[in-house]
Order: sequence, then C-alpha cells, then structure tokens
Amino acid sequence: MQARTVRWSWPVIVVALVLAFLLGIAVILPGVPRTTAQSVREFWLTAQGAQVSLEGGVVWNAWTYNGTVPGPTLRVRVGDLVRVHFTNNLDRIHSVHVHGLRYTVENDGSQAYPDSMPAPGETYTYTYEATRPGLFYYHCHSSDGGTISYHMLKGLYGAIVVYPADQWPPDPTYEFVQFFAEAPTDPGLAYVINGGQASEHALWDLVNTQGYAGALQTLKDAGVRVVPVNQELTFYLIGIGNEYHSWHLHGGNPVYVNGQAAEGDVVPLGPGSVATAKVKLANPGIWLIHCHLVFHADAGMVTLVIAE
Amino acid sequence: MQARTVRWSWPVIVVALVLAFLLGIAVILPGVPRTTAQSVREFWLTAQGAQVSLEGGVVWNAWTYNGTVPGPTLRVRVGDLVRVHFTNNLDRIHSVHVHGLRYTVENDGSQAYPDSMPAPGETYTYTYEATRPGLFYYHCHSSDGGTISYHMLKGLYGAIVVYPADQWPPDPTYEFVQFFAEAPTDPGLAYVINGGQASEHALWDLVNTQGYAGALQTLKDAGVRVVPVNQELTFYLIGIGNEYHSWHLHGGNPVYVNGQAAEGDVVPLGPGSVATAKVKLANPGIWLIHCHLVFHADAGMVTLVIAE
Amino acid sequence: MQARTVRWSWPVIVVALVLAFLLGIAVILPGVPRTTAQSVREFWLTAQGAQVSLEGGVVWNAWTYNGTVPGPTLRVRVGDLVRVHFTNNLDRIHSVHVHGLRYTVENDGSQAYPDSMPAPGETYTYTYEATRPGLFYYHCHSSDGGTISYHMLKGLYGAIVVYPADQWPPDPTYEFVQFFAEAPTDPGLAYVINGGQASEHALWDLVNTQGYAGALQTLKDAGVRVVPVNQELTFYLIGIGNEYHSWHLHGGNPVYVNGQAAEGDVVPLGPGSVATAKVKLANPGIWLIHCHLVFHADAGMVTLVIAE
Repeated sequence: MQARTVRWSWPVIVVALVLAFLLGIAVILPGVPRTTAQSVREFWLTAQGAQVSLEGGVVWNAWTYNGTVPGPTLRVRVGDLVRVHFTNNLDRIHSVHVHGLRYTVENDGSQAYPDSMPAPGETYTYTYEATRPGLFYYHCHSSDGGTISYHMLKGLYGAIVVYPADQWPPDPTYEFVQFFAEAPTDPGLAYVINGGQASEHALWDLVNTQGYAGALQTLKDAGVRVVPVNQELTFYLIGIGNEYHSWHLHGGNPVYVNGQAAEGDVVPLGPGSVATAKVKLANPGIWLIHCHLVFHADAGMVTLVIAE
Repeated sequence: MQARTVRWSWPVIVVALVLAFLLGIAVILPGVPRTTAQSVREFWLTAQGAQVSLEGGVVWNAWTYNGTVPGPTLRVRVGDLVRVHFTNNLDRIHSVHVHGLRYTVENDGSQAYPDSMPAPGETYTYTYEATRPGLFYYHCHSSDGGTISYHMLKGLYGAIVVYPADQWPPDPTYEFVQFFAEAPTDPGLAYVINGGQASEHALWDLVNTQGYAGALQTLKDAGVRVVPVNQELTFYLIGIGNEYHSWHLHGGNPVYVNGQAAEGDVVPLGPGSVATAKVKLANPGIWLIHCHLVFHADAGMVTLVIAE
Repeated sequence: MQARTVRWSWPVIVVALVLAFLLGIAVILPGVPRTTAQSVREFWLTAQGAQVSLEGGVVWNAWTYNGTVPGPTLRVRVGDLVRVHFTNNLDRIHSVHVHGLRYTVENDGSQAYPDSMPAPGETYTYTYEATRPGLFYYHCHSSDGGTISYHMLKGLYGAIVVYPADQWPPDPTYEFVQFFAEAPTDPGLAYVINGGQASEHALWDLVNTQGYAGALQTLKDAGVRVVPVNQELTFYLIGIGNEYHSWHLHGGNPVYVNGQAAEGDVVPLGPGSVATAKVKLANPGIWLIHCHLVFHADAGMVTLVIAE
C-alpha cells in the first residue's frame, strides 16, 4: 500500500486548527493556577503615637499603627501570601502578632521568638499565608515596660479580613470595622469604640435643641456615616480589651451572624472574640450603636449611623 | 359580514358562570391577605414603684412596669402590629425601648428621639411590627438623673416572645421567663433572678430540719413551681444587667439551645444576651437553678423547680 | 376422619430442629441487651490537700480530688452506669456534683440533698448514667464555712468526657484537658490553667539567654508537652471560675469548635462554660497558649506546647 498524501482543503485546515486550539486550552486551563505565582499582598505598619480626643475634654495619648486607632484594616484574599513590613517608631519594644493567618514561629511576634519583636527604631518583616476566609485581627504582643494588655489597650490593634477567593476585589462601601476596648487615660479606663466616644446625654440635648431635622443635619456635617435604607451592611466587630462587651444597633432587625438571626438583637463580644454581623436598617433616621453592657454605653461606648 | 347574536343555552350559561366565578376566585385569592387587616395586639405598661423583699431582710425599692420585676411578658405572633401604651407614673423621664421588633425612629424610646421618652405623668404609644419569631425584651432607655444602666437595673425590663404564625395561640403552661440581673439596693448590688433571691444555705437548713419530704411540701406551699417529670420545659433566659451570668439547672440533661444539646450543661448569658433553653427533668425532686458564675449563686442568684 | 400419626424421617426432623433453633434465636435476640448488664464504670475520688507552686514563689494551699488540680478526668462511654466513690479527707463538708450525666436527687451532691454531701472522714457513693456524648465536669457543691465558689476555686474540680459508643476505648494521646480558673492564694487571686502558671516575661528571657534551640530543649526537659506537626489535637476547655476567660493558641489555625472554624482564633470560656477545640499545628516550634483576656495572661494564665 503506497504512501498517500493527505490533501486538506483550506476550510478543513481552519476547522482542524480551531479544534486543536480549543483542545490545547482545555488541556492547559486546569494547570493555569498551578503555574501562576501566589499573589503577594504587602502592607506597611509603623508604630507611632497619636493624641485622641475623648468625651469630657479627655485627651488619650494612644500608641497606634499608622496614626489611627484601630490601625489600617488588612484586606486579603484566601491563598494570598501576606507580608507586613513593621517599623517601630516608639520608644519601647513592639511587635505585630496576627490571628487567623498561618505562620512559622519566626513570624509569631511574641515572646516565643524575641527576634520578631523589634526594638525602637528597628524594622521587621512578617510573612503569613491566608488559608481560610474570616474576620481576624493583629495586635502588639510586647510587654516591654509593663504588660501585653497595656500595649494593646494603648491602641496597637487592627482588623484583618480574609475574603473568599470568589469575592475579590472586595467592596468595602458598606462595611464597618468596630473595635470595642478600654483605653487607659489619665482619669482612668475609658470605654471606646474605634478609639472614640459619644454620649447619649449629648444626643438628647442635640435633638432637643435643634429639632430632629436640625440634629440630623448637624450629625451629617460632623461626619456621621450615612447609609441607604434597606442596604445590607456588614459590621466587623472585635472585642480587643479585658472586659466583656455586647454590640447593639437600634432599628436593625434581624441581625445575622453566620447566617443566623441573632435572638435578642445583641451580638456578644467577649475579650478577644469577633463577630461578623449583617443587617439592614428598615427605616430612615439617627440610629444608635452601643455596648449593651449598658454601663459601658453610659461611659461613652456609643456611636451612630444615619439611614436615609 | 352581518352582526350575529350569540345564543347560549341555559346549561352553557351555567357552566360559563361557574367558570367565571372560579376564575374570579383564582384572581382575587392571592390578594386576600392584602385586604385583611393585620392583627393588632395592644399592651398597657405603667412605670411605677414597688418594694421587693430580698434575702437577709433587704428591701429593694424597685422601678417596675406594672408593679413586677420583670414587667409583663409581651406574647405576640409573627405578622402582628404591636401597640404599647406607656404611662409614666414615676418622677423621672422613662421610656420603652424594644429589641427584635421593627419600628420607626419615633418608636425608638431612646435619646435619638426624645419625644418618645415621656416625662412624669405623661403617656406615649409605641407601635412596632413583629417580623420574625424569637425571644426579645423591652427596657427603659432613659438616663434621667443618672445613667441608662441604673434605670434598667432598678427593674424596668420585661420579655417579648414572638411566636411563629403556626404556634398561635401559645401555651405558656410550661414556659419560664428568667431575667438575670444586678439590683441596686442600700447595702450594694444584689444578684437577682426575676427580682428575687434564694439561698443555698437556707435550702440546706430546710432539708436538714424538715427531712426531704417535709422540705418538699414546705417549698410547694411557698409557691415553688411544680412540673411533671419528662415534661418539656421552655426557659426564656435574659441577661439584662452589667455582669456576665450563666444558667445551670440541676437534674436537667440535655439542655437544648437552638436544637443543640448544650455541652457543659450551662447556658451563657452575657449582658444583653438571651437564650431559649428546652429541657426535661428526668427524675422527681427539688432541683436547683442558679448562676454558674458561682459567686453570684452564693450571693442569692438561685431559684428552684420541683419535678414530680 | 381418623387420627393420623405423622411420620417424620430423620432428615426432616433435623431440618425442623434447626429451623426451630434459628426461629428461637430470632425471637430471643432483640431481648439480649435487656438481659446483659450495662457497663459499670467506677471511679474513686478523695478530697485532700495539696501545695501547688505558682509564679513568683507563691505557694497555693489547694483542695483537690486525688492530689491534683484538676482532679482525674473521668472518661466514660455513652450508655455506661457511672459510680463515683467519694471519700472526704478534708476538715469541712465536701461533695461531688456532676454536669452532663443523668442522676436522681440522691446523687445531686448539692444543698437540695444534704445526705449526698459527706462530712469530714465520711464517704458517699454517687451513681449516674451517661446518656449522651460531650464534655462535662464535676465539682464540689458545698459551701461549708464559706461559699460554694470558694470550694471550687480552691481546686475541687475535674473533667468528664463522655465518648460516643463507637469511639471506645478512647485514645487520649493527643487530648489536652485545660481548666481556666482563679485560685485564692495569700497575695490574692491568681489566674491559673490547670492550677499552674507560666510567664511570658520568663519565656522571653529564656529564649534570649539560651537561644531558640537551647530554650526548646530546656522546655522539653522541663516537661512541656511535645506533639507532632499536623497531628490533630483535641483540647477539652473548661471555664470553672468566676471570671470570663478566652483561649488562644499561637500557630494553630483553624481551630474547630463543633466542626466550625472559629473566627478570630479565640475560644470563649465564660464561667461554667466548656468547649471542645480541635486544631493542628502547621509548623514546628514553641507555641503559646494563653487567656486572650490578656490581663489574665499577663498575670500567669499561660502554658506552652511544642510541635516538631
């Protein structure tokens, strides 16, 4: 049987090439993630001082990451390699210790690995892996000159949100990060949400003096956050102090935590605990958010949101 | 083509009318709920004083809704419109603020809407919607003359139970509502369940003195609640104070909370938190219920139930 | 019709007997469990004193079951009848009260049945049924000479683990039982895990002085528990004191509680509450375990685990 030259017409060749191309894609595609480098997400944190004004004219000399309490929220994606470049610009040893990310002991930022706790003026780079979604946080683990809890209460904490791979990039428009803590100030422990305070007495006075519409405008001008009615809001809640706190939003019902409607409409925040709460405000207005360990609300653990 | 008169025989007309009637029903039916009035459930609450006797001869000058601590339990059904007619018969500003019901800001009963907090001698009517089942509560949100937490600890709180639509009318025969709180009394904070106290020392003395059968009868005569063995009991538990509490029932195992058997046989009750616990007592006897923050039990946060 | 003698051949008779035998088994079998004795599991507990060394040279005069804080872990199987033979070798009334097992009032070990609380030198035998799996605990319920909470804080507590029937015998190789409590000592309340303390300051000094490898060996020599990397560990966690605690393990992520990955990487331990946490250490090293009510960690509520 003699050799035979196959003669393909142009249309047949085009079809064959297209098929081969599609086949090639089909073979290569599943391998693509394996050959792509893991995303590296980098953050720069600097320990530095800040003065925070609280109710009653109290000034709190805070220790912060990057000048705010809490420090910046680290938003990463499951699968990311996370690098934190930490510079200690305060006059004691400080560190970054994370929850919820995976790390080796060199990145622990604790007393188990002193080299990971830089002295004043020094820097340290921490590397972590984001292996699962969730709400976590970072904080200083140093006790230099006192206790670890003092370093934390002074303001050295911030949130970490690890988003599922299919929810990236995240849209933080209607996200709220709220840390509940005690702040060591000159007159004593102050109860703060994100390092700030508000007073229910003052709110009463404001609405009584200006009327409801006037007070609403004053609060908006003062920077109180405004959200649309029936917009789903996400609250990332973290209890970072030594006392038990309890989150309550007026006008928000139901509040969902892990997909379950919270009975009682209160979200518990034990020391070190977190919760991700999802809620819509069904009606417009000035709505209180406060600790439902009500003595803390009386002491300033109050904030507001406006729905319209 | 000329006009034509359609001649229907009587049977045809009857069939046509029946069909039209059925069609009409089909069209109208989905709209029926919209035209039916929502059930309106009304309650009358009056802020008034009461003297409550605690252990050791202590008399607590309580502030109450309707004369009892807690105030009456508001039992409503999902879908109800709820109206609370509140009269303030005390000498400070007071209010009603609810959890778990839906409301506009005019019904908030808080500092965000001062008009919803009536002065002494005044009344205010609050309107809410019951949109989902669950255990909730109401409390005073005023801080007149002091703090909000003081107004609450003085006794101004009560339970709200929203029953699913298909569990109405409810049968409260084997329901227990138990508020765990601290009461401000002359000698200091007292730990109370529903504004009352009991002493484990006194129980020991009673049983040692009268024998078990004698003590059982004495307790029954004194009004301790008696339930059948193996009857499912529902405990509506609410932590309304500033301290953490923890509910424990002797002889009850398992305790179910949200359908899950509680490991440890203890139900946590953080400040502002609630839990609905279901349990059967497998054996007859005098059974203790107490705070498992045991120092509180030592201080009187104890009550009893008898199974037989 | 006359009487007829049935003549069976031997083979027929053999077959008939075999069939009757099998039928008899079929009838009897379902009843077998009723005639077999329930497994009885017996334990002997003795209330006795012990001196426990804490940080800073403090000696704690503890009251214990069998000489250790906590007392021995009672491991039983669902379905077991459990007997605890209790001897009181201390000089006050003491008792054993259990959570999670089923019992009659004679076995309550509380003030509701004083006879179940033996005087000094006396013994009492408690009988319980293990009806469901889970983590529970036992403790003294006496208030003789003071309060119940004092009796408990002095060290009279231990764990109960009820294993599912199909997980027997249990393998406790990688189980940890950890009680978080306050201990009344001469200088004041001490924060202890299993009656012991550790210091993060001391760990810092050790690693700084000996280097990481040296410190690791020192800790191993001192008896710190060593587990393999990626081995699933089970932590039976119990908050037995009057204060809120919060469990955090460095390097462990995720921590599963009831099959759910714990957001925040912290396990709440309210007074009386328990949690069963499952976790693998992904990387080798010295890993801290401490209360994340961080003031408690600062005060000694710290322990270690080594992964390699």
